[in-house]
Amino acid sequence: MSLPAPTDPSALEGFWAVIPAGGAGTRLWPLSRRTSPKFLRDLTGSGRSLLQETHERLAPLAEDRFLVVTGRPHRDAVAEQLAGLGDDAILAEPSARDSMAAIGLAAALLERRDPDAVMGSFAADHVIADPEAFRACVRTAVEVAREGWLVTLGIEPTFASSAFGYIHLGEELPGHPGVATVQEFVEKPSTDVAAAYLATGRYRWNAGMFVVRPTVLLDLLGTWHPEFAAALRSIAAEPDRLDELWPDLPKIALDHAVAEPAADAGRVVTVPSTFGWDDIGDFDSLATLLDALRDEGGSVTVLGDDALVRAVDSTGLVVPRSERVVAVVGLEDVVVVDTPDALLVTTRARAQEVKAVVAGLTESGRTDLT
Amino acid sequence: MSLPAPTDPSALEGFWAVIPAGGAGTRLWPLSRRTSPKFLRDLTGSGRSLLQETHERLAPLAEDRFLVVTGRPHRDAVAEQLAGLGDDAILAEPSARDSMAAIGLAAALLERRDPDAVMGSFAADHVIADPEAFRACVRTAVEVAREGWLVTLGIEPTFASSAFGYIHLGEELPGHPGVATVQEFVEKPSTDVAAAYLATGRYRWNAGMFVVRPTVLLDLLGTWHPEFAAALRSIAAEPDRLDELWPDLPKIALDHAVAEPAADAGRVVTVPSTFGWDDIGDFDSLATLLDALRDEGGSVTVLGDDALVRAVDSTGLVVPRSERVVAVVGLEDVVVVDTPDALLVTTRARAQEVKAVVAGLTESGRTDLT
Repeated sequence: MSLPAPTDPSALEGFWAVIPAGGAGTRLWPLSRRTSPKFLRDLTGSGRSLLQETHERLAPLAEDRFLVVTGRPHRDAVAEQLAGLGDDAILAEPSARDSMAAIGLAAALLERRDPDAVMGSFAADHVIADPEAFRACVRTAVEVAREGWLVTLGIEPTFASSAFGYIHLGEELPGHPGVATVQEFVEKPSTDVAAAYLATGRYRWNAGMFVVRPTVLLDLLGTWHPEFAAALRSIAAEPDRLDELWPDLPKIALDHAVAEPAADAGRVVTVPSTFGWDDIGDFDSLATLLDALRDEGGSVTVLGDDALVRAVDSTGLVVPRSERVVAVVGLEDVVVVDTPDALLVTTRARAQEVKAVVAGLTESGRTDLT
Repeated sequence: MSLPAPTDPSALEGFWAVIPAGGAGTRLWPLSRRTSPKFLRDLTGSGRSLLQETHERLAPLAEDRFLVVTGRPHRDAVAEQLAGLGDDAILAEPSARDSMAAIGLAAALLERRDPDAVMGSFAADHVIADPEAFRACVRTAVEVAREGWLVTLGIEPTFASSAFGYIHLGEELPGHPGVATVQEFVEKPSTDVAAAYLATGRYRWNAGMFVVRPTVLLDLLGTWHPEFAAALRSIAAEPDRLDELWPDLPKIALDHAVAEPAADAGRVVTVPSTFGWDDIGDFDSLATLLDALRDEGGSVTVLGDDALVRAVDSTGLVVPRSERVVAVVGLEDVVVVDTPDALLVTTRARAQEVKAVVAGLTESGRTDLT
């Protein structure tokens, strides 16, 4: 694959970074909450939130060309965390209407703002271990997108995950060594099917990251959902009509609305990518991620102040987020998340089931904790 | 065994309840601390501390004849918890000098206060499931003690514990059916040896509970440690000399100073007792005790406000002592003790090792938490 030198420091002219910042965050409770979703939290111990890290990762390419799409309840928190951005860099959705509406509105605004724009959409709550490798992939993707393709980043799978959708690679794109057409997007498979995918070497994880010209995206949407595309362009033309038009927009994921039919129509390509990616789906994957970032393992991993954790003969993840000392004695693969108003104790293997706790709290009226 | 009817409501004339209230409490950290040892805590969910329960258990026999021996740092807390007692019912040791000094001083004071006194000594931090059965045993013990014996309560062992010393029963005491002479006291045995003891049916746990006339106790002490007995009697005669004489008293357990040699001399008898006893040596035994008291098991046992605990497919003990919600997901025999400034997560099997945490905290200067 002929990629630009990974240390290329130049920005990409006309490149706009779109950052959808949403998500309920119940799988990382009590660290993330409805009112404080994971993109607002520091989940890697870097001292910066995932949103801030996403911004930092893209700033060398986008400079100040950012558009963060978030819910109204999070608008102020986003503005505070990304204080350098102008007010019109944050787009507050009146209500959550899934990714097509959110990203489509960004596309419609950019289409008017900069006819030569190429946009890249990257969720605010993903972690990337190697930002330079990531930027090199984005450079390639932008180059290809300028030619009118919908370009996805295809993450090299590191195990047979049943938690992600997959991208099935087709032929190499002529003139772009290493870049492949997308044969199809496939939904989350079983672990067995995923293992079979990996064995072929022709599948990549779909992390929902893509690069495209805004006009191409909206025209593709217009092919299958003409009224949807028209409504988005109307809002962009008359922003005052946002509250009026927004509630009627279809609630549909961008993958279903555009990416899948566009792949069938031969309009999607992918840049196979290896830069260490994680969407931190639960505390188990957070523990794996932190161990990989820190090259640790064998003892308790601490996300927070090490001095607060006293571990005796234990492994797993401890997140001390109150000021209290947390002592863990004789537990394997334990997960302890200590916050000022709620404590979670579970195991890495059972970490997904924290959703049941959040559901139970909601049901019993303790929404102050969810 | 011919015991008085267990519902006998009458007090025992001349019977004084002596309550040694000491102990470091590191094995129940972070629930108990140096500054707040376990006898000051509610460990059964009764709403009363172990000290208060000990007092309540003995009041029907002793009425207001109590003498609590405790360290000076705990004097005020004891007075507050036992507000009904007069000021001279609390004896504050200038420093910890083990049980012979503490209980011996109580004996010396009582010897002067009431020549016909019979004292019973019962630690402030034990739990007894059946207080009426306990009082029935004490009644028998007092009756026998009036005849000049040192009378211990011999707890029926419920398993082959290596954590307790044992009382080896000898012949039945003539005139007192069921009461036995003590052949010897034996130190904490191995589990195998303990199992062999149990198989004979002639061994009882030594819970350190005994009943004796103060003069008998001091005279026995005087047989082997004449200066010690004399010093205690000097303090009782001139209480102003407490601070002067106390530091020179030997640091020795009453078992070693008196009970063991007195048994060899044929002066000790025991009342075999079955009333559900526990000294709550660690969180494992606390969990066992609570399950027995509540007839529970199969799920998480909560010591505190049930509404704060959200358990999914878990067993063990949760102690919510901050106001926070504690969620436990998918853990077997877990122990979670949540206090405002420190959190412990361990398993019932490893509960003893909390001592290592306390030692580590002390070593690193966090004595505010120990």
